[in-house]
Amino acid sequence: MSSSPLSASAVTVLGLGPMGRALAGAFVAAGVRTTVWNRTPGRDRELVERGAVGAASAAEAVAASPLTVICLVNYDATDAVLRQDAVTAALKGRTLVNLSADVPERARDTGRWAGEHGIGYLDGAIMTPTPTIGTPHAVFLHSGPEELHRAHRPVLDALGGTHSHLGEDVGRAAAYDIALLDVFWTAMAGYVHALAVARAEGITPRELAPYAQGIGAILPSLFEELAGDVQDGGFSGEGNPLTSAVSTMAHIVHAAEAHGIDTGVMRAAEGLARRTVALGHGADGFSRIAEVLGRR
Amino acid sequence: MSSSPLSASAVTVLGLGPMGRALAGAFVAAGVRTTVWNRTPGRDRELVERGAVGAASAAEAVAASPLTVICLVNYDATDAVLRQDAVTAALKGRTLVNLSADVPERARDTGRWAGEHGIGYLDGAIMTPTPTIGTPHAVFLHSGPEELHRAHRPVLDALGGTHSHLGEDVGRAAAYDIALLDVFWTAMAGYVHALAVARAEGITPRELAPYAQGIGAILPSLFEELAGDVQDGGFSGEGNPLTSAVSTMAHIVHAAEAHGIDTGVMRAAEGLARRTVALGHGADGFSRIAEVLGRR
Ligand SMILES: NC(=O)c1ccc[n+]([C@@H]2O[C@H](COP(=O)([O-])OP(=O)(O)OC[C@H]3O[C@@H](n4cnc5c(N)ncnc54)[C@H](OP(=O)(O)O)[C@@H]3O)[C@@H](O)[C@H]2O)c1
Ligand SMILES: NC(=O)c1ccc[n+]([C@@H]2O[C@H](COP(=O)([O-])OP(=O)(O)OC[C@H]3O[C@@H](n4cnc5c(N)ncnc54)[C@H](OP(=O)(O)O)[C@@H]3O)[C@@H](O)[C@H]2O)c1
Repeated sequence: MSSSPLSASAVTVLGLGPMGRALAGAFVAAGVRTTVWNRTPGRDRELVERGAVGAASAAEAVAASPLTVICLVNYDATDAVLRQDAVTAALKGRTLVNLSADVPERARDTGRWAGEHGIGYLDGAIMTPTPTIGTPHAVFLHSGPEELHRAHRPVLDALGGTHSHLGEDVGRAAAYDIALLDVFWTAMAGYVHALAVARAEGITPRELAPYAQGIGAILPSLFEELAGDVQDGGFSGEGNPLTSAVSTMAHIVHAAEAHGIDTGVMRAAEGLARRTVALGHGADGFSRIAEVLGRR
Repeated sequence: MSSSPLSASAVTVLGLGPMGRALAGAFVAAGVRTTVWNRTPGRDRELVERGAVGAASAAEAVAASPLTVICLVNYDATDAVLRQDAVTAALKGRTLVNLSADVPERARDTGRWAGEHGIGYLDGAIMTPTPTIGTPHAVFLHSGPEELHRAHRPVLDALGGTHSHLGEDVGRAAAYDIALLDVFWTAMAGYVHALAVARAEGITPRELAPYAQGIGAILPSLFEELAGDVQDGGFSGEGNPLTSAVSTMAHIVHAAEAHGIDTGVMRAAEGLARRTVALGHGADGFSRIAEVLGRR
């Protein structure tokens, strides 16, 4: 396997769910020789019409290219495909990029397995939805051997967007993915809850949305500020102490429960804040919770 | 009481915590004759030096102006101040604007009390921190009689920023406040949790922050989209079904617990999503949770 443009311009894609199809479609569109395979047959039809090669088995697909990209539902699925003797043997001396989502320890475990079988292994995470693939809006995070990443970067760039190599620890992309999805899904949970509370108060979703967008707009600068607090151990609560956050959270719980709306998420958040206050940090800012959560 | 600029250009501020002082300071800076009072004496010193009049009692303070703005910690506190005979009597025929935060039912209860005592009552919420007061960045929400709001708007405009009158229901500003703070504090809880998870994975807060800001940046447009879903009953999960959100949330819980980090908030959010899936909405989008939460 070399890093010359020619030999790198062939790729295999294992997994043709919505994301796998988007990835394979972007490779085809960029003129990369693309071989595809999916557990359930028939998912490759449109891609084959556009010029992709449909393989009869995963092992055959892997053997067709120096680089294989796999994108399945999770690592139970990638294990089921990759850890078959014929597939493992076919991968030997080639490079595998796993763009499936799972926890960091599964990525590291797959990295160990790959090392034991002479397979070059990179792990990544896709942070944006399928319509962004092949466009400048796609965001990919990668981790694993830097040199291997550099060698295959020209082909991966056919997927469009930004590609960040986050470090040699093969679990690092998954760790970023988990932390970022933590922010995302928690915020989304807060928003759907707010829509329900607002509605119970006679406020329509479209009436609330512009103000909620205003709240969303101030988050990025607060995220930067809190990161500085936590990294430097600042935690100043001047102007917005934890005690005040706790009292606001209690109001939210009270108002939602008056309408019979479940408040499990806010109760859990309030509990964290109260515990942090009880540890003597009531005058600190909300960032103190990150430090307390991290204590073992 | 009339709405002429002259008589409206005197205001009383009850409560000189950080926010009350900011409000009074903005009135003074705008040249409004400002009378101030606070339960604990001495908090008016700087304001009096700048030209405010310090009153010896809340009743005396209220008697000095056609318009009183009160901003205390909550409505237990405003009740304690306002529902004293001398203060209630002094407020008769005047207008009271309550900018303290609490649940909508407390605002409505205060509105009823005001009505019974011949007091013009408006209720509001302040959505931005003290440094914004008197600047274009301040955001005020108001509710209660539109005419009363219009009459006092010239004085309130001295506080700077944008003032939205949301409706005649006196509890409406508090309802918006609760819903918006629900989004805000839930998102903040997700972020401090993500900082803790990232740190346990060897990712520093400042390394995570730029990517978290990227997540924050996509929220406003998603908020708009979800509002449309919930209002129109769309709920399409195409490309991102609830089942997929549930699996991602389980990964987050698993990864955080592997580091001994509390996952109460995400577990509660995951529980909501799972319950919604169990009700037969697994192929719907995340917005379906808002509808399910609102069912009685
Ligand atoms: N869709 C997005 O917008 C998006 C965005 C960012 C990241 N991602 C990530 O990308 C990955 C793929 O997502 P997706 O949207 O394509 O849909 P998905 O439903 O997460 O995955 C579907 C793919 O997984 C395969 N699969 C599932 N179990 C399998 C098994 N035991 N053995 C072999 N193959 C198995 C399916 O094959 P069959 O067709 O045979 O069932 C199909 O190819 C996921 O990890 C997801 O989190 C997706
Ligand atoms: N600070 C902000 O950035 C901000 C932003 C938006 C909204 N708000 C809202 O503005 C309101 C005021 O906030 P704040 O920042 O000024 O600080 P705060 O700590 O919420 O309120 C302090 C004020 O409440 C008074 N108080 C408390 N209990 C009382 C009682 N039983 N009787 C009479 N007065 C009592 C205090 O008087 P003493 O001095 O005598 O204790 C002081 O004047 C709150 O509802 C808050 O949620 C604040």
